[in-house]
Amino acid sequence: MKEIKGGVTAPQGYKASGVACGIKQSGNLDMSLLVSDTPANAAAVFTTNKMAAAPVHLSKKHLADGQAQAVVINSGNANACTGDGGYEDAIKMAQVTGAALGIDAHDIVVSSTGIIGVPMPMDKVEAGIKDGAAKLYADGGGCAAEAIMTTDTFVKEHAVSFDFDGIEVKVGGMAKGSGMIAPNMATMLAVVTTDAAVAPELLKSMLVSAIDKSFNSITVDGDTSTNDMVVVVANGASGAEVTTGNEAAFQAALDKVCIELAKLIVRDGEGATKFIEIDVVGAASAGDAKKAAMAIANSNLVKTAFFGQDPNWGRIVAAVGYSSAEVDASKVDVYYGEEKLVENGRVVAYDEAKVGAVIQAKDIKVKVDLKLGSGAARVWTCDFSYDYVKINAEYHT
Amino acid sequence: MKEIKGGVTAPQGYKASGVACGIKQSGNLDMSLLVSDTPANAAAVFTTNKMAAAPVHLSKKHLADGQAQAVVINSGNANACTGDGGYEDAIKMAQVTGAALGIDAHDIVVSSTGIIGVPMPMDKVEAGIKDGAAKLYADGGGCAAEAIMTTDTFVKEHAVSFDFDGIEVKVGGMAKGSGMIAPNMATMLAVVTTDAAVAPELLKSMLVSAIDKSFNSITVDGDTSTNDMVVVVANGASGAEVTTGNEAAFQAALDKVCIELAKLIVRDGEGATKFIEIDVVGAASAGDAKKAAMAIANSNLVKTAFFGQDPNWGRIVAAVGYSSAEVDASKVDVYYGEEKLVENGRVVAYDEAKVGAVIQAKDIKVKVDLKLGSGAARVWTCDFSYDYVKINAEYHT
Repeated sequence: MKEIKGGVTAPQGYKASGVACGIKQSGNLDMSLLVSDTPANAAAVFTTNKMAAAPVHLSKKHLADGQAQAVVINSGNANACTGDGGYEDAIKMAQVTGAALGIDAHDIVVSSTGIIGVPMPMDKVEAGIKDGAAKLYADGGGCAAEAIMTTDTFVKEHAVSFDFDGIEVKVGGMAKGSGMIAPNMATMLAVVTTDAAVAPELLKSMLVSAIDKSFNSITVDGDTSTNDMVVVVANGASGAEVTTGNEAAFQAALDKVCIELAKLIVRDGEGATKFIEIDVVGAASAGDAKKAAMAIANSNLVKTAFFGQDPNWGRIVAAVGYSSAEVDASKVDVYYGEEKLVENGRVVAYDEAKVGAVIQAKDIKVKVDLKLGSGAARVWTCDFSYDYVKINAEYHT
Repeated sequence: MKEIKGGVTAPQGYKASGVACGIKQSGNLDMSLLVSDTPANAAAVFTTNKMAAAPVHLSKKHLADGQAQAVVINSGNANACTGDGGYEDAIKMAQVTGAALGIDAHDIVVSSTGIIGVPMPMDKVEAGIKDGAAKLYADGGGCAAEAIMTTDTFVKEHAVSFDFDGIEVKVGGMAKGSGMIAPNMATMLAVVTTDAAVAPELLKSMLVSAIDKSFNSITVDGDTSTNDMVVVVANGASGAEVTTGNEAAFQAALDKVCIELAKLIVRDGEGATKFIEIDVVGAASAGDAKKAAMAIANSNLVKTAFFGQDPNWGRIVAAVGYSSAEVDASKVDVYYGEEKLVENGRVVAYDEAKVGAVIQAKDIKVKVDLKLGSGAARVWTCDFSYDYVKINAEYHT
């Protein structure tokens, strides 16, 4: 497997566009289109938030048959908490996209991200879809990725290729993030494409597995959005067919793209100055490891300590203690980088210079060993800075 | 029931002291003693954190028989993550206190709050206990309350009295808080006294009920500490005996003292500029109401919005949506003060001046009506300001 340039249009047989249609007052790109040259298999995972936005409900319905040929995403307006009218607007988006592309509206995945509770400006949306449909390019992935940004400060793309029995298979993706919900923005969103052929059920189970290791292993602020969606489209344009038994290389590629996109979301976390990788090992189960790791990653006290560049291991062991994971207080070890600070639940004499170097770096690694079993999990988070408060306090509805 | 002056020494038959013994580098009071003139019934609720500090383990053991006559609390050092040596230090604190007061060490409740992971300076602790034992006064509750402060900015006391079949019964208490764990400080701690006689089992069940409505209905930062403890001591000095069947007035008084202390903790939340009361009504169950209310209260996005004085109802409905409470998105109503902003999950035309006045005040009330049943819960939280980050980032271990 090797990294290649680009994002959703890196695999064969895809075109994309990103245009500005005036949903964002800034005039920035706000309408993103991705189209497969041929009908494709597709799978998605959606937010579990019970206030899920209208396009989430519609896209679930459209993907029930495992088929999709295009994805339309607008930024600047989440079409969330907009009632029946919002659902009709989502249907209209699919219809307009389908008509512009000559595709059945049921094969369109619709997504929206932006301000909650404001009706969609459908005249602008419709014009944007038509404009985007006229500007589809085989190298349009970058524009499409730019057009899904809200409070993001940079474009998030990743792509890889690997050899599959002599055929080059590519997997590419784009994502947006920033806060789990940024300033009234409903947020985490990713689209992954591949030119392998994968049956819908297998594609779904592989996506669920990849998400567990990537998008479900990151946290910025612990808030779960109304609009989260990760969708993967597999059009088979490379001629390679992934099936049960030969799927390992594809799973690895899908994992890699999802993990890199997830990490980019954390690096662009609102106000983030640090990127923190947390490994919990030695847990009684993998589930316990994940619970402990996420408790650390979500703790405001841990995150503010990293912003302050303080090796505040007490906050880490306290988070482990309330995580609901099985913990024996007399066994817990904590490492910053390679340096052990806590052994068997007690602080040990450690090299302050080495620990200081670890926490002053932009990228920080923390490891907790519970010494109870073989359960392990890795998650990523960012620190919690003045700017997080500033970004989220100063945004006005 | 009426409010009266004072705290833990407001009821009859108690003496207390607060002295400085040098655990805190500042020279502030750091050793608190509370003694009942006679042996008393007692009950407590402890942190569920699996990294619970040594004194938590010891006090659980000492309270197993429902008896206690004194409470000794030091601030400045949490005696947490200190291993076997820390447990021996907690035992030593009980022994020294017992010897100084002429009480069996098993009738002493021991608590510590402060920095995690540092061995207790036992020479200072022992001297402090002896000094405190020599300075016990019937009006010493205020000094005792001052001596348990860590990052708290003001003393937290409350007391009430009520008529019980012609006998005046008093309930008083003190608490400390600030952050759930402040800068490496292990935190939430409260002691309540009464001169009623209450059997240990009844006292425990009434304490659990009171805590559910008070200390378990507040949140500052969602972090659960290693040292949390709420203890109630009932010495019967008033001559009144509370038993099953006549307990309503006592429960009301206990609730009132616990709720007022809990509110004081929120008002002194680290960096807090706003005090926010959140009512969730119409939930399918009381448990669902509590889950939804706590999800709102713990959301960083909600809390930063309040700091920014922004009526960001989208963040409130999103928190309700991910709270795990049963929710019908098409039924949710949201009120700021008396003003309805959201009806049936959609924003409605509201009076911006009225909503502006609500969110610009120091005390803010928010109500969410899920319109599914009769479940209700009330919780309190504070906003999330620059100073929270500053306090928690700039503290160095």
